[in-house]
Amino acid sequence: MSRRHSHSHSTISSSAALRLAQLSSHLTPAVSSEQSSTMTKSKASAQAAHPLTLIPGPVEFTDEVLAAMATPSQSHVSPQFVEVFGDALALLRQLFFNTDKRAQTFAIAGAGTLGWDFVASNLIEPGEDALVLHTGYFADSLADCIATYGGKPTQLKAPIGDIVTLDAIETALKEKKFKVVTITHVDTSTGVLSDIKSIAALVRAVSPETLVIVDGVCSVGVEEIRFDDWDLDLVLTAPQKAIGVPAGLSIFIASGRALDVFRARKAPPTSYYASFAKWLPIMQNYEAKKPSYFSTPPVQNIHALLASLKQILAVPLADRFAAHARMSDRIKSTIASYGLKQVAVREGYQANGMTAVYLPDGVALPDLLPRIASRGIVLAGGLHKEIATKYFRIGHMGVSVTDEDREDFDKALGAIKESLAEAGYTV
Amino acid sequence: MSRRHSHSHSTISSSAALRLAQLSSHLTPAVSSEQSSTMTKSKASAQAAHPLTLIPGPVEFTDEVLAAMATPSQSHVSPQFVEVFGDALALLRQLFFNTDKRAQTFAIAGAGTLGWDFVASNLIEPGEDALVLHTGYFADSLADCIATYGGKPTQLKAPIGDIVTLDAIETALKEKKFKVVTITHVDTSTGVLSDIKSIAALVRAVSPETLVIVDGVCSVGVEEIRFDDWDLDLVLTAPQKAIGVPAGLSIFIASGRALDVFRARKAPPTSYYASFAKWLPIMQNYEAKKPSYFSTPPVQNIHALLASLKQILAVPLADRFAAHARMSDRIKSTIASYGLKQVAVREGYQANGMTAVYLPDGVALPDLLPRIASRGIVLAGGLHKEIATKYFRIGHMGVSVTDEDREDFDKALGAIKESLAEAGYTV
Repeated sequence: MSRRHSHSHSTISSSAALRLAQLSSHLTPAVSSEQSSTMTKSKASAQAAHPLTLIPGPVEFTDEVLAAMATPSQSHVSPQFVEVFGDALALLRQLFFNTDKRAQTFAIAGAGTLGWDFVASNLIEPGEDALVLHTGYFADSLADCIATYGGKPTQLKAPIGDIVTLDAIETALKEKKFKVVTITHVDTSTGVLSDIKSIAALVRAVSPETLVIVDGVCSVGVEEIRFDDWDLDLVLTAPQKAIGVPAGLSIFIASGRALDVFRARKAPPTSYYASFAKWLPIMQNYEAKKPSYFSTPPVQNIHALLASLKQILAVPLADRFAAHARMSDRIKSTIASYGLKQVAVREGYQANGMTAVYLPDGVALPDLLPRIASRGIVLAGGLHKEIATKYFRIGHMGVSVTDEDREDFDKALGAIKESLAEAGYTV
Repeated sequence: MSRRHSHSHSTISSSAALRLAQLSSHLTPAVSSEQSSTMTKSKASAQAAHPLTLIPGPVEFTDEVLAAMATPSQSHVSPQFVEVFGDALALLRQLFFNTDKRAQTFAIAGAGTLGWDFVASNLIEPGEDALVLHTGYFADSLADCIATYGGKPTQLKAPIGDIVTLDAIETALKEKKFKVVTITHVDTSTGVLSDIKSIAALVRAVSPETLVIVDGVCSVGVEEIRFDDWDLDLVLTAPQKAIGVPAGLSIFIASGRALDVFRARKAPPTSYYASFAKWLPIMQNYEAKKPSYFSTPPVQNIHALLASLKQILAVPLADRFAAHARMSDRIKSTIASYGLKQVAVREGYQANGMTAVYLPDGVALPDLLPRIASRGIVLAGGLHKEIATKYFRIGHMGVSVTDEDREDFDKALGAIKESLAEAGYTV
């Protein structure tokens, strides 16, 4: 997909270009002769050979995104950067199918986690109730965050690997008034995919004023999210997953309704850095191509965000989602053919950007992941506290999926199969 | 200075190298034929021609730092990245002359501003008093941050351009018990340099339990800060100033005393993302070269931090400070020879990394900065609310100072002189 997006400006001299890129290779970690045989060089990439990072974020990045990370210094209020930041905020809307301008996109130096602080300190006042739908590790953390700022989280927990049912949500919503409902769209610890469209519709029907908050850290860019049509209030995410940009940003979109709820707060926001009051005018100004200052934005990371959004939006999002679904199906069916089971148990509620896989009996993580790594493929261990040592995770998002020339998952699935065999498990 | 640090690992092929660097130039903002005559190409740099950013941050970056920003994807818990993050945290200590391991360095995705949230939500409990020494814009913001988390800031304000005197501080300290005293080492809105060594000694003498907090955003890397010797408790900074790394990190060091005060809190921290409880074990683990997870770190920004710290620490810090002081003296005396006055009025209390300069009568910012920009030099306007339209600012930190081959300030001072003349002010 990345190859369809072309750039037309070139001013650099080739000798200078060569020197910059040589420096790039100097600064990658030292590769010993033993390790170097495990490095994988993508056919089509200009990047130095490196182990393929196929975890649920950070994902592999395109050459264009990495080059944008190396943009020479720019003032954060220069016309050049204002243009880039404004364009990035505008293109972000498209990722959410958003056209309602009462909503606002945000991109702020930080991390996906910081998005929770924005929710908890701006949309929930001390003492107000929040319903937290729990499909894995990240709901515990989100509940912790809400409580930190004085909100009262009530968790509705699914069994590990399963979803919270609509019936359970409806019952909870009828018991008390919740200021917000939070949904982890894809819980990165389990690979469970929640049906945010149906949940949002249920909330609107049963408790119309309750704000619907989506943690889209492992879903934005790989799962369909129709922000306006589904009447969502805030979707937060991070760049290093399906958006395909290095970690370092908190990205989110807030609805007109959410911003009105914020404006009607009785108490001031309970965070300083994560305050809508501070950042909303900044984002509005940049999107209107006007410089503005609260705290220096991460210029290079924003350049990288714009570069990736241009690549992503160069093809219809439906095609992007379909490509990820096809790859996910292939990985999940291959894993099943090896006799392995997914953590996410319910058909139709399994993430399209990652797969969490239980280890076979008799094989421990230290028997498997190092063998896979020795083949140049980095996968992730478990994260859900109760089962952390019993499973591993594969991320399948971004350029590793959309650029089939890379053959990243041919390599990965081969490495998994060989490594299982070496560990004594016959596929 | 950067040239003294050499790297020895090279794995990239030259054709791939060339392609990556060409992409880099593609992704810099479009340069029109009109603009291109204003682009400045450093003799020794491999970067695409671009306007020189000589503002009080972001500063110009070295080729090595930009190349590190383009490091291919790495898992945040991979042995390779753990090594890099651990080394960066260890080298950060050297920047503060810190050897006392009860202190801890932190580098977290965010911004300089986020450091204030760390101070206000971890070291000050709701209702506790903070003495905020005010030498410009940033003290107002810091006081706002402290109040957000329930602390009670008392500002001690200097006249614009001047320092808060030791007498005034002593009087204030004797009036009530302050949990913390905050000092803006260099206020970027005025260029006033505070004497943190003497202030810290005074605090220890008069109110030994009061924590001494330094906002070193525009000072760390250019002004001497002896964290252990001067008995400081927390110094926070940002990467895009004298550390010479793109914006996107909150960097700080906290003393053993500060961490003990945190551990003895009665109330839990009032921020989630900016919580010592969350991040302290993460930083300790990475520095001990053990992977650890709370929130995904910004892998590429940390690579860039390590690259820059290696360059900075390749020469004695005293030499670095002296080089900055010489350049600062040169710029300040040249400005004076033009008949212009500094905002920072008191000799010996003027920043070594920036100069804030009042405009001459009859010349407004829009008469001057665009003319300077047309010569390929980006300077900054005013920031202090009360005088914002009356002055401009020059940043002189990092590679533009230490690499004399670049001749950045020959160009900048020439551009200022010519532009003043064009605007009708005869030097």
